[in-house]
Amino acid sequence: MGLLSPLFGTPEIQEVFLDSSRLQRMLDFESALARAEARTGVIPKSAAASIAAKCKASLLNFEALSSGAALAGNVAIPMVKQLTALVEKDDPEAARFVHWGATSQDAIDTGLVLQLRDALALLGSDLSRVCELLAILAERHRGTPVVARTWMQHAVPTIFGLKVAGWLDAMLRHRERLRETQARVLVLQFGGAAGTLASLGHKGLAVAEKLAEELGLGLPAVPWHSHRDRFAEVATTLGLMVGTLGKIARDLSLQMQTEVGEVFEPSAPGRGGSSTMPHKRNPVSSAIVLAAAERVPALASIMLGSMVQEHERGLGGWQAEWETLPEIVRLSAGALHKMVEAISSLGVDSERMRRNLDDTQGLIFAEAVSTALAKSLGRTAAYELVEKASRKAIAQKRHLRDVLVEDSQVTSSISAQKIAALFDPLGYVGVAPEFIDRVMTTGRPRKAKKGK
Amino acid sequence: MGLLSPLFGTPEIQEVFLDSSRLQRMLDFESALARAEARTGVIPKSAAASIAAKCKASLLNFEALSSGAALAGNVAIPMVKQLTALVEKDDPEAARFVHWGATSQDAIDTGLVLQLRDALALLGSDLSRVCELLAILAERHRGTPVVARTWMQHAVPTIFGLKVAGWLDAMLRHRERLRETQARVLVLQFGGAAGTLASLGHKGLAVAEKLAEELGLGLPAVPWHSHRDRFAEVATTLGLMVGTLGKIARDLSLQMQTEVGEVFEPSAPGRGGSSTMPHKRNPVSSAIVLAAAERVPALASIMLGSMVQEHERGLGGWQAEWETLPEIVRLSAGALHKMVEAISSLGVDSERMRRNLDDTQGLIFAEAVSTALAKSLGRTAAYELVEKASRKAIAQKRHLRDVLVEDSQVTSSISAQKIAALFDPLGYVGVAPEFIDRVMTTGRPRKAKKGK
Amino acid sequence: MGLLSPLFGTPEIQEVFLDSSRLQRMLDFESALARAEARTGVIPKSAAASIAAKCKASLLNFEALSSGAALAGNVAIPMVKQLTALVEKDDPEAARFVHWGATSQDAIDTGLVLQLRDALALLGSDLSRVCELLAILAERHRGTPVVARTWMQHAVPTIFGLKVAGWLDAMLRHRERLRETQARVLVLQFGGAAGTLASLGHKGLAVAEKLAEELGLGLPAVPWHSHRDRFAEVATTLGLMVGTLGKIARDLSLQMQTEVGEVFEPSAPGRGGSSTMPHKRNPVSSAIVLAAAERVPALASIMLGSMVQEHERGLGGWQAEWETLPEIVRLSAGALHKMVEAISSLGVDSERMRRNLDDTQGLIFAEAVSTALAKSLGRTAAYELVEKASRKAIAQKRHLRDVLVEDSQVTSSISAQKIAALFDPLGYVGVAPEFIDRVMTTGRPRKAKKGK
Amino acid sequence: MGLLSPLFGTPEIQEVFLDSSRLQRMLDFESALARAEARTGVIPKSAAASIAAKCKASLLNFEALSSGAALAGNVAIPMVKQLTALVEKDDPEAARFVHWGATSQDAIDTGLVLQLRDALALLGSDLSRVCELLAILAERHRGTPVVARTWMQHAVPTIFGLKVAGWLDAMLRHRERLRETQARVLVLQFGGAAGTLASLGHKGLAVAEKLAEELGLGLPAVPWHSHRDRFAEVATTLGLMVGTLGKIARDLSLQMQTEVGEVFEPSAPGRGGSSTMPHKRNPVSSAIVLAAAERVPALASIMLGSMVQEHERGLGGWQAEWETLPEIVRLSAGALHKMVEAISSLGVDSERMRRNLDDTQGLIFAEAVSTALAKSLGRTAAYELVEKASRKAIAQKRHLRDVLVEDSQVTSSISAQKIAALFDPLGYVGVAPEFIDRVMTTGRPRKAKKGK
Repeated sequence: MGLLSPLFGTPEIQEVFLDSSRLQRMLDFESALARAEARTGVIPKSAAASIAAKCKASLLNFEALSSGAALAGNVAIPMVKQLTALVEKDDPEAARFVHWGATSQDAIDTGLVLQLRDALALLGSDLSRVCELLAILAERHRGTPVVARTWMQHAVPTIFGLKVAGWLDAMLRHRERLRETQARVLVLQFGGAAGTLASLGHKGLAVAEKLAEELGLGLPAVPWHSHRDRFAEVATTLGLMVGTLGKIARDLSLQMQTEVGEVFEPSAPGRGGSSTMPHKRNPVSSAIVLAAAERVPALASIMLGSMVQEHERGLGGWQAEWETLPEIVRLSAGALHKMVEAISSLGVDSERMRRNLDDTQGLIFAEAVSTALAKSLGRTAAYELVEKASRKAIAQKRHLRDVLVEDSQVTSSISAQKIAALFDPLGYVGVAPEFIDRVMTTGRPRKAKKGK
Repeated sequence: MGLLSPLFGTPEIQEVFLDSSRLQRMLDFESALARAEARTGVIPKSAAASIAAKCKASLLNFEALSSGAALAGNVAIPMVKQLTALVEKDDPEAARFVHWGATSQDAIDTGLVLQLRDALALLGSDLSRVCELLAILAERHRGTPVVARTWMQHAVPTIFGLKVAGWLDAMLRHRERLRETQARVLVLQFGGAAGTLASLGHKGLAVAEKLAEELGLGLPAVPWHSHRDRFAEVATTLGLMVGTLGKIARDLSLQMQTEVGEVFEPSAPGRGGSSTMPHKRNPVSSAIVLAAAERVPALASIMLGSMVQEHERGLGGWQAEWETLPEIVRLSAGALHKMVEAISSLGVDSERMRRNLDDTQGLIFAEAVSTALAKSLGRTAAYELVEKASRKAIAQKRHLRDVLVEDSQVTSSISAQKIAALFDPLGYVGVAPEFIDRVMTTGRPRKAKKGK
Repeated sequence: MGLLSPLFGTPEIQEVFLDSSRLQRMLDFESALARAEARTGVIPKSAAASIAAKCKASLLNFEALSSGAALAGNVAIPMVKQLTALVEKDDPEAARFVHWGATSQDAIDTGLVLQLRDALALLGSDLSRVCELLAILAERHRGTPVVARTWMQHAVPTIFGLKVAGWLDAMLRHRERLRETQARVLVLQFGGAAGTLASLGHKGLAVAEKLAEELGLGLPAVPWHSHRDRFAEVATTLGLMVGTLGKIARDLSLQMQTEVGEVFEPSAPGRGGSSTMPHKRNPVSSAIVLAAAERVPALASIMLGSMVQEHERGLGGWQAEWETLPEIVRLSAGALHKMVEAISSLGVDSERMRRNLDDTQGLIFAEAVSTALAKSLGRTAAYELVEKASRKAIAQKRHLRDVLVEDSQVTSSISAQKIAALFDPLGYVGVAPEFIDRVMTTGRPRKAKKGK
Repeated sequence: MGLLSPLFGTPEIQEVFLDSSRLQRMLDFESALARAEARTGVIPKSAAASIAAKCKASLLNFEALSSGAALAGNVAIPMVKQLTALVEKDDPEAARFVHWGATSQDAIDTGLVLQLRDALALLGSDLSRVCELLAILAERHRGTPVVARTWMQHAVPTIFGLKVAGWLDAMLRHRERLRETQARVLVLQFGGAAGTLASLGHKGLAVAEKLAEELGLGLPAVPWHSHRDRFAEVATTLGLMVGTLGKIARDLSLQMQTEVGEVFEPSAPGRGGSSTMPHKRNPVSSAIVLAAAERVPALASIMLGSMVQEHERGLGGWQAEWETLPEIVRLSAGALHKMVEAISSLGVDSERMRRNLDDTQGLIFAEAVSTALAKSLGRTAAYELVEKASRKAIAQKRHLRDVLVEDSQVTSSISAQKIAALFDPLGYVGVAPEFIDRVMTTGRPRKAKKGK
């Protein structure tokens, strides 16, 4: 594995996409095909056994495969050649039935589907984990006030638990999308040279059914050699998820700024240090997630653009997928895992959150005041009054409350005591708690559904 | 509408995204908000009526809106200002309740959701239409043999109806995806300044429920000001669909080539002509679809990349969506409509299809022969024999059949009569008819489901 | 112009890309063609005059053009038809020479080149302006210390003028790139039906030379109907520039955060306000620039992807450029102009910059201390000592200096006085002033070069 | 190297981007830094020698580097740690001067610049080679007529040599762009913690000068840690080149279609075969180039989008470059090399080209006839006459010439003999030969310039 691999991916996902795994998954297709054809009487049962015995990646010569792939244009052709030679040594009769009725793309695509099944299972588990962690975090902070920021400026107070519930709410939708996508993509590819299974005569469909069964995959209506929406959808579904992960990482990195200091990625010896600055604690998980959020959208666009494939097998578009889709899955799974790490022991400084609310000397409560005054003065007049008072407070470097209590229009509308109460952050968070509850409830029944 | 508008979009879709429609949909939000707040006792019933009476795009000054938007950074701020002034003229009391409790983004986002509802309904109808047309075409050509081409080379024979069924099969998946996406995206946006509905006190949720009801939208668990996966999913779902449209257009344009001549876009006076070449009949629909297939993937990646939005309202990411999502919908709907046009009276030259099958003097049946011989000779030996015969046929410019019948290995395996039969395209299409049936069946129950 | 136009573009640039301008530029091609052909004796001089007289966008029927374009697949075909009819009315003899020897794409591409010439001139002027403004700003702040931030964390002190000089240095490279790009793209497109100018016989090249002369464009070696690198380079050159603009806007928006408060976009009545929060001053220019920086990269990728055009005129790729390139230029010019606005009266709070340096109670000087100690202790030991002291200072909430002076290893290496001096930001900015000078010098000779 | 590596890249380029090369190039930076600092008296000469002695990738523990990188967030931190330990073993005194004054990014960026220098040199050499090959091919076919195709339809005749000259013309521009880009990107990165070289005191600039000298790189005006236009420009320059390669590959693959058969990729045993179809000769080089042309545009957009980097060192954007830029260079160099292979022994069937010109029974000469008639009838009338005749020829399946000679309007304008002459392809190629010459001349002086 490469130097940078641990940054962009997890060891488990990288295992799934190793060359040896890629190869093994294609060989799994070949052995399942032999079994399916034996079950349907297309080839002898003994041949199936002899073939299956050789379907082990470790028996193949990688160097020859690689140079063969360069010549042939894909890796299945030299693989079938090597496999046939291996089978021939022990059972010459069986050798003629290797890859029977299939085409290169059947093995390559189905192999990738099998890899995706493994990868998406791993990813799905981290997705559930991140949802659980966010639910706990939201619950824990359902009473923690924090600055809500819009356009990167202080706006009004909110609840940190609601911010987290917003993250969770989006991740729950991604879980739903992933399930829908899995249902569509985890299907067999099997069509022979051009999608008709012609070389299997009238037995094509029967073999296809058994083959799907052997591999535990769905049987699609038709082969999809040049219809790549299934694979592209994996890319876009993960792209959507990575977008949300990027959003969370952006929030975390902004809150981790030295001047803000509200949250902290977990610290560990050597984690996020600098080669020259001993005091640094860099948000390394956020950086990796944000890097993925820069890359995956464009990589997903490659998958969409590559869908324009010619006739019964594409020229260029198909080949463009081979490295791209695994890269997308690797980056997405890696980003998700970094988020699990970051959230699992996220430092939260709720005192600092409280202090930051006071940064603007009451300006953050401008809307609260404006709303309170609007009842008597009307929205526009109230807004203008508070805007003026805000400007005065800034110019005179005073607290907004102190400026307001000098204004007779204000004091004739609201009592001094009520004014003071307006400057309590927890007094101006609306239905934040109900919103948190709603997200929790959304999450729960879906979990139940999953348990079915 | 612009000079090029009729090329990239349909009049109906462009209507949905006119500035005046954008504005009207935001005003629809404002009037529904007033009604919802009247129903929940937040504002007087009379105010709601006065506000609703002014929520008409035609009453607003566009120029002032536009320059106000440039200053304020979004179009809702000057819109609310103008609306308030309009209401004030007739009912000063009501003016204070305009936009009560809402924030700019609530109006902008919900307005866009309403536009999307209209646009996706139009698009969904064309999507169903294209599915129907493809089903008819596949049915009509279930017995029409055509060259299957892989890597842009003749491969083996297939059935034109199966090619069309493959297109249909993908479009049916897009219909399913669109339904799932619509269920997620057609929801209200309503959170106030920072997603807590603070200025509505404890009545926020009640207002939100009534507001969703008024607009016929779903009520999401929480506001989603900086969680944009719903909008981004519209982009990716359409991106997937446009990918398939591009694939179909690529196939059509390849089959329309002068040297191939198998299908033809409908002809009409002035359609697809050249300013200098009187004999030209250019595939204009395919060109437009292919152009969309070049553009939409990258545009979708903008939506994915823009999801990284800061805190409670983004800076840059949000603004990046404003022109991008309408452009994606416009291009996608336009491409889909061009496909409806192209398919609805597609010329199909089945004689030419038949003739093209003979282009290679029997080489296209090489696999058929190889498969037939494999039964006695084994896959590898048969493959090598036929490969050699193919080379000989090419070198001597003879028909493959004629070369084969000279080979004793061949004639001792298969009778001359059987050899001749191998060169019948309809004799080597495997389970193509069953595949066509499977797609038709897939399509039908889904239609039924829709009818519920 | 649209509701959102003033947000994404400048009025001047939008003028260049109006439909009427697009049309006029194509008509400019037609009249110049007629003149060039008259000068080379290909058509009568009188015909040229009659044709030129009608080459006015205002004489054409836009609606007919638009619907004609939808049918024909491009806008030049109906334009030539209308122009011919107009000429015919006054001079039937001349009508036969309209568009003589040219193809639609000649008019469309050259028209776009002429639009680009106008647009890039406007953009180049703003580019120079932004360079001047940045040079002034860098000069003014060559002594203003500010926190340098890496990974969004305080790192060490730097000079605000150097930060600005870094921005300037990049913009100077963009000016250079734009000049190189202009030299390549501002050339004639003229090849006739398929790039041979066949219908002009042996006079093709002579006409091309005069035509280029008439339009003030370069004459390329060959027509470039399906070689689009020139147009794509405009996209990538602007993409690079927008990347830097986005970087500057990101810096500004981070420095404008409520908790940071170091710089401010210019304020004006109604600018950057909120519909509900009277105290808000949103960074609207930064938002627009950042939105462009989200969009232009993907739009540029469309131009690159569309370069794969078929044979002598592309199908899909060419059409994909029509809206995309103008959009890129518009967004880029708009973002650049917003930057001019933001920089031209940027508020800089150097006191706050100074105060932020103290935010970490001396930690920002950790490297300075570490470097000073390294001379006697070695880099690693010094680093570890300071790292430990930093942790202690954080834990005990004390100033790093106070922790350090308690450490005998420190005091035996450096005097207390020297330690205090280490905590002066201007004492630890290395060659920042020289770096600023170097950028200024880089800028100056290039300016001179331009003046040649 | 991976299974698919030989498909997407060349062995030489992959060598440049091996992990060990990446590491060695960073170590080259460290040793050059030590030497530069020794030369400027910053560190002892003996220390420089001790450090340089250990700057060998093979001495480092890769596994530890990789896991260290995951923790620290970049690979330079653990590398410096290991290097320091290695130096310490032999020369404890020298160990304190390892990486003196530099920051991680200085080593990482400069290392990548050194890798790019190697890679772009290899790529530049293939770029020159492809230009030479295209020049020879254009020259050889300056008299070979071929169908010019627009919108993927037969248009008029052209010269195959001109088609090739068009490819060459674009490649020559890419050579020019690459030179400009190299001049900008092959520069040192050296700024210390935050770009001020603070820890080197007033000697920063002197060290930087010597360091640039040691490495043979240019010295930029200022460090560019968060200004990434140089790296992004490598991406866009290669993106432009790959666009043209994709265009050429598209042309080749279209001309290689079974029904067209005009050109052929070189054949070799095992090259472009099919696992099931013995007669297949797939255009594998074109497929790989087209795959690159699908991928590189989006990858380039990642580089552009990542330019938005925060303050003095970015979070996410910087990290997004690490795998992306090498991938772009690898794919581009690989595509270029496949093109060298394809062109170096491209099969050209000029007889088939001639035959294809007759495919439409004279329709391809419609413009020639129309132009000839226009002299007497005017452009519009001539166009309409020929359009009508073309339709008649198609409907009656006759040769256009035969239809025309029956028309008295035609015969009264042109003699029968002249009509026949209009159907000679070489008689209607305009200034194609002059255009070919112009490209050749463009190419030559540039070559000369390079030789300086």
